[in-house]
Amino acid sequence: MKYCFGVDVGGTSVKMGLFRYDGNIMDKWEIRTRTENQGETILADIAESIEGKIAESQILKEDILGIGMGIPAPVTGDGIVYQTANLGWGYKEVKREMEELTALSVSVANDANVAALGEMWLGGGRGHKNLVVVTLGTGVGGAIIVGGECVIGSHGGAGEIGHITVNYDETETCGCGRTGCLEQYASATGIARLARRRLKADDTPSMLRAENQVTAKSVFDAVKEGDQVAEEIASEFGKYLGYALANVAAACDPGVIVVGGGVSKAGPILLGFIERPFRERAYISNVNTAFALAQLGNDAGICGAAKLVLK
Amino acid sequence: MKYCFGVDVGGTSVKMGLFRYDGNIMDKWEIRTRTENQGETILADIAESIEGKIAESQILKEDILGIGMGIPAPVTGDGIVYQTANLGWGYKEVKREMEELTALSVSVANDANVAALGEMWLGGGRGHKNLVVVTLGTGVGGAIIVGGECVIGSHGGAGEIGHITVNYDETETCGCGRTGCLEQYASATGIARLARRRLKADDTPSMLRAENQVTAKSVFDAVKEGDQVAEEIASEFGKYLGYALANVAAACDPGVIVVGGGVSKAGPILLGFIERPFRERAYISNVNTAFALAQLGNDAGICGAAKLVLK
Repeated sequence: MKYCFGVDVGGTSVKMGLFRYDGNIMDKWEIRTRTENQGETILADIAESIEGKIAESQILKEDILGIGMGIPAPVTGDGIVYQTANLGWGYKEVKREMEELTALSVSVANDANVAALGEMWLGGGRGHKNLVVVTLGTGVGGAIIVGGECVIGSHGGAGEIGHITVNYDETETCGCGRTGCLEQYASATGIARLARRRLKADDTPSMLRAENQVTAKSVFDAVKEGDQVAEEIASEFGKYLGYALANVAAACDPGVIVVGGGVSKAGPILLGFIERPFRERAYISNVNTAFALAQLGNDAGICGAAKLVLK
Repeated sequence: MKYCFGVDVGGTSVKMGLFRYDGNIMDKWEIRTRTENQGETILADIAESIEGKIAESQILKEDILGIGMGIPAPVTGDGIVYQTANLGWGYKEVKREMEELTALSVSVANDANVAALGEMWLGGGRGHKNLVVVTLGTGVGGAIIVGGECVIGSHGGAGEIGHITVNYDETETCGCGRTGCLEQYASATGIARLARRRLKADDTPSMLRAENQVTAKSVFDAVKEGDQVAEEIASEFGKYLGYALANVAAACDPGVIVVGGGVSKAGPILLGFIERPFRERAYISNVNTAFALAQLGNDAGICGAAKLVLK
């Protein structure tokens, strides 16, 4: 039996998993991310933790295919990071350092891309090789997988679906400094903004008016209760996202579109709001493209990292 | 010295080229496409022509790396075609049949994708591995190249940039049956349509009013003469195309965007009209993405077909 490790490095904790090559998770655990002193001990901490797990589980080192790692930063094809927002690292040869620390083969990639690979391997995108993965959280993240591999792009910027322009008349500014980005309508904060705008527009009764602060969650909770205003807000969100995804599909022709992130906890009802406008605008090749919810939650990172080793 | 053949199969003629592995074209010629009897002799005609060229040029058969072919139809990864609009073929195992006819290794792909590979190898996209190629002809064609290979997609529909929706208020219908597709504004016929609409809108003097039938060519000719109305038409065209390409770039992050097709004969002035709105709307990663005109014209197909063999 062959094994590998999947490591998801975050700003507060490092999640780790021991996988069988067939995708079975044997064990998972986490350690604190020590970001002090430019994060100089992070890799050594991970290496030590993995060595401990190998000893504990009595796996032979020759049965370990390698270690996959997801890092919250752009990563070159050689496993080099130039700058990180949350780990304290500047230039760091992550792959080389980690291979020296563990004497195992190491693969490194960006954490968002790695999570998308996880959903392809063991989650909502199982069975597909061409995927668009969109993550609706505080912002809107994305990843495009072609032939089983994440598209990186010439400047490490591929998959920035959140910054597709969807409204050329918007006056408020996106976090990226431009206006009208998908992220302004389809993120959790974007949905809350659509809700505030809608509630201000007239006096139609809605259970959302009782909320101190309307959130994406309260919008979809109200939809489930049959609230008409909430339904309108969700439809507006879905139109922005569904139309944008139809355009992405015309370019990439995915087999499945996987929707994840905090907003996706609303469940299957969410997909309906996105799929209807998508199918209305999709090109012939894509009218039957499948939609799926992400299934792995916080485990997507360790799963995708493990998959990096097995590809 | 190693050689290969590039074959571009069209509805009226088959273009062929003999290439050195370094991209040097040694010879090029064409034969008629005999579409009669469901095109049953097309492959044999090509094989015979290639055998003749091998004899004539006294190349050793063991120095020939193979034959690449571009076909005007969707092609599977195994070199199978299910239907063609212009060749008379139904289901045809192009790769297998051609290998039996020539005893050479054969690679087959869709002609639009093959032409894009040609521009990457020897044309406007030289030096890049990630490209968006957009072809402005009667329609708007496209291809997306990632890591040196064309994206095919899960239904063979990748690169359909012409059918990105760019105007949700359009009432006229696109050839695909939907409304507001990029093709309705950025193809040669689309530009002519924008021109007719603009000329009808008011009486501003323009040299275009002297034309019986305004074409994309007459619009860009008038721009070069300083005609203000033509400039407005070209700007509207460029805004539709540049904005759409900025959204494609957010998804794919190409190193270069190559613009080809009949409309591109307008020359470098055309790129300016596309680049200005592109840079206004492009995400941070893409504000400096290069633009280039396609350079190979009708040779793109044979060049890209040859490149199929060499990849």
